[in-house]
Amino acid sequence: MRIAIDAMGGDYAPDEIVKGALQAAQTYQDTEIILVGQPERITEILGGSEQPKNISMQPASEIVSMEEHPANAVRKKKDSSIVVATQMVKKGDADAVVSAGSTGAQMAAALLGLGRIKGIERPAIVTVMPTLEGGKLILDVGANPDAKPEHLVQYAMMGSIYAEKILGLKNPRVALLNIGSEETKGNELAQKTYPLLKQIPIHFTGNIEGRDIPFGRADVIVCEGFVGNVLLKTSEGLAGALFQLIKEKITSTTARKLGALVIKPGLKEIAQMMDYAEYGGAPLLGVNGISVICHGSSKQKAIFNAVRVARECVESQFIEEIRRELPRFQIVQN
Amino acid sequence: MRIAIDAMGGDYAPDEIVKGALQAAQTYQDTEIILVGQPERITEILGGSEQPKNISMQPASEIVSMEEHPANAVRKKKDSSIVVATQMVKKGDADAVVSAGSTGAQMAAALLGLGRIKGIERPAIVTVMPTLEGGKLILDVGANPDAKPEHLVQYAMMGSIYAEKILGLKNPRVALLNIGSEETKGNELAQKTYPLLKQIPIHFTGNIEGRDIPFGRADVIVCEGFVGNVLLKTSEGLAGALFQLIKEKITSTTARKLGALVIKPGLKEIAQMMDYAEYGGAPLLGVNGISVICHGSSKQKAIFNAVRVARECVESQFIEEIRRELPRFQIVQN
Repeated sequence: MRIAIDAMGGDYAPDEIVKGALQAAQTYQDTEIILVGQPERITEILGGSEQPKNISMQPASEIVSMEEHPANAVRKKKDSSIVVATQMVKKGDADAVVSAGSTGAQMAAALLGLGRIKGIERPAIVTVMPTLEGGKLILDVGANPDAKPEHLVQYAMMGSIYAEKILGLKNPRVALLNIGSEETKGNELAQKTYPLLKQIPIHFTGNIEGRDIPFGRADVIVCEGFVGNVLLKTSEGLAGALFQLIKEKITSTTARKLGALVIKPGLKEIAQMMDYAEYGGAPLLGVNGISVICHGSSKQKAIFNAVRVARECVESQFIEEIRRELPRFQIVQN
Repeated sequence: MRIAIDAMGGDYAPDEIVKGALQAAQTYQDTEIILVGQPERITEILGGSEQPKNISMQPASEIVSMEEHPANAVRKKKDSSIVVATQMVKKGDADAVVSAGSTGAQMAAALLGLGRIKGIERPAIVTVMPTLEGGKLILDVGANPDAKPEHLVQYAMMGSIYAEKILGLKNPRVALLNIGSEETKGNELAQKTYPLLKQIPIHFTGNIEGRDIPFGRADVIVCEGFVGNVLLKTSEGLAGALFQLIKEKITSTTARKLGALVIKPGLKEIAQMMDYAEYGGAPLLGVNGISVICHGSSKQKAIFNAVRVARECVESQFIEEIRRELPRFQIVQN
C-alpha cells in the first residue's frame, strides 16, 4: 500500500507532518509513505541516513496557504503539494492522500482530480468528534453549506458505512441534527429530510439535539455543512476555553497549585479523551478516491493516526462499499 | 412596576419559581410581583403569613406542558398561566411577564397576545451566553428556523440596542455567525446578510466563527434560529459533559479526592462563570411588550435574575427605543 502525505499543509508543516510520516513508516512497514513537497525542507527534517526504507519523496514546488481561495489556488498551483499528492491517487501511484492543509483546497483538488462517486451529488466532510462514549461521526462539517434533503440522505448512507467499516460499530445509530425531538420540528430542510431517512436501509434513530451530542447518544450525526461547521468549531472553542479557565483557576493560589498537581493525571485523561488527534482524520466522503482530511493544527500523533485511518479505508475497500450500497438508496434519490 | 410571573412553567415549577418570586419581592420593594397559576399550589409554597406585601396572585387553572404543540396549546388553553400572564401585559395590568415554561408557547402567547413591533417581521429569541469575557448575546436561538437576510439585520439592530441598554455595553461589537472570516464565506443567507450589516448604523465587526464565541470575541452574535439553537444546546451539553467527566476523573482515587477538595473553590468559580442562571433570562425581541424567557431548568436564582432583567427592560424603555431606532434601518428593509 502506498500513502501520499502532503508534507507542506498544516499549521505545523512540514516539521510535524514529516515526524508523523516517519512514525507511520516505522510502524507500518508494509506501507510505502510518500512525502509530497519541497525536497530540501523535507530532507532537512528527515535528517541523516537513519530513514526507514519505506519512506520516499515526491517533489512539489508550490504550497496552497490557508488564506487562498481554494478552487482558484488548486487550478493555478498545479505543482502544489496537495494537487500533486491528489494526482498520485488519480494516477494510481498512491492508494490514498493525507493532508492537514487547507480543507477547501483539499476538497477542490479531490473534486477536480478524483471526481465524485457516481450517484453522489455532493461530497461531505466528516469529522470524528470525541464524546463521553468515544468518537462519533458528524457530517457534513463544511463541504456544502446549503444542502438539500437528498444530500443529507447520501451523507447518512456514507456515514453509516464509514462508522461500520472504519470505526467498527455494528448497526450504527444514525441521527438527524435538529432543534427538537419530534419529526415535525426544525427548519424546512430537517422537516423534509426526516421522512426520507426513515425509508432508507440504515438504523435511523430520529432527531438529535445539540445537548445530546457530547454524551455520545448517536454514532453518526447528519446535518447541513454550515451548522455542522459551527457545531464543530464551537465545541473546539468551548473545550479550549474551559481548559484554559481550569488551568487558571486551579493554580491561582499556592494551596490550589498543590491540589492541581495531584489531580493533574485525571485532567490529562480528560484531555486525551477529548483529543481529536487520537482519531487522526477522516476521509472526504463521496469522492472517487481516498483523501483523508486532518485538523489544521495536526501534530505528529494526528498525522500518524491519519495514516492509520487511510490504511483502514484502503483495506476495507470502503469506496467500493459505497458504490455497492448506492442502488439500495435509489428510491429516495429519484 | 408590576411583573407577572408564570408560576407553573419550567422543570422546577411551581416550587423554585415561587421561591425566586419571593426573593425578588423582598429585594425589589418598589415592584409588585404577581404569581400567575393555580392558587392552592402557589399558596402551599408561599406558606404562612410572612409574605411580603408586594406579592400577589392571579389565578390560572391550566398549564401548557413542554410536550404540547405551542401554538395549538396557547389557542386552546385560554386559562393557562402563560396566556393569562401575557394577557396581563396586553391589558396593562403588568409591565412584563417572566416564564421558564415552554419557549414555543411563550412565543406563541406573545405573538397572539402582544403582537409584533411595527416594522419587525420576525421576533427573535435572544440568549445570554456565558463566555470568558462575560455574558454575550446570541440571537436568534430558535424563534425562526428559516430566516431571511432582512430578519438577521433586524436581529442585529435589536441585539445591539439590548446589549447597550441592558448589558450596559458601549458601542457593542455585532458579528455575523459564519464558517469563515471573509465576506464571501458561508451559506447563501450569510453571504447576503453580510453586505446589509455593513450598511446599518451598528458596530459591525464582520464574521465570527464558532471557536471564537466562548472567548467573548463579539458582544452580539447574529444567526438563523436553527443554527443558534444547535450552538446553544451543544455548548450546554458539552459544558455539562466536561464537568461530569472532571468530577469523575478527579475523584477516582483517594489521593485525587484530597487534591479535588483543595481545588474545588476554583472549579466552583468556573461553574459560576458559566452559569446561565446568573443572567436569568432575556426578552423575546420584536414583540410589543416585555416577555422574558428563562431556561426551562431555572431555579430560584435564575427566576430572581430574570425579574431583574424584566425590571431593566421596563426602566430602560427598551421597546420604545427599538421603535425609535427602526426608521434608521429602513434603507435595507426595502
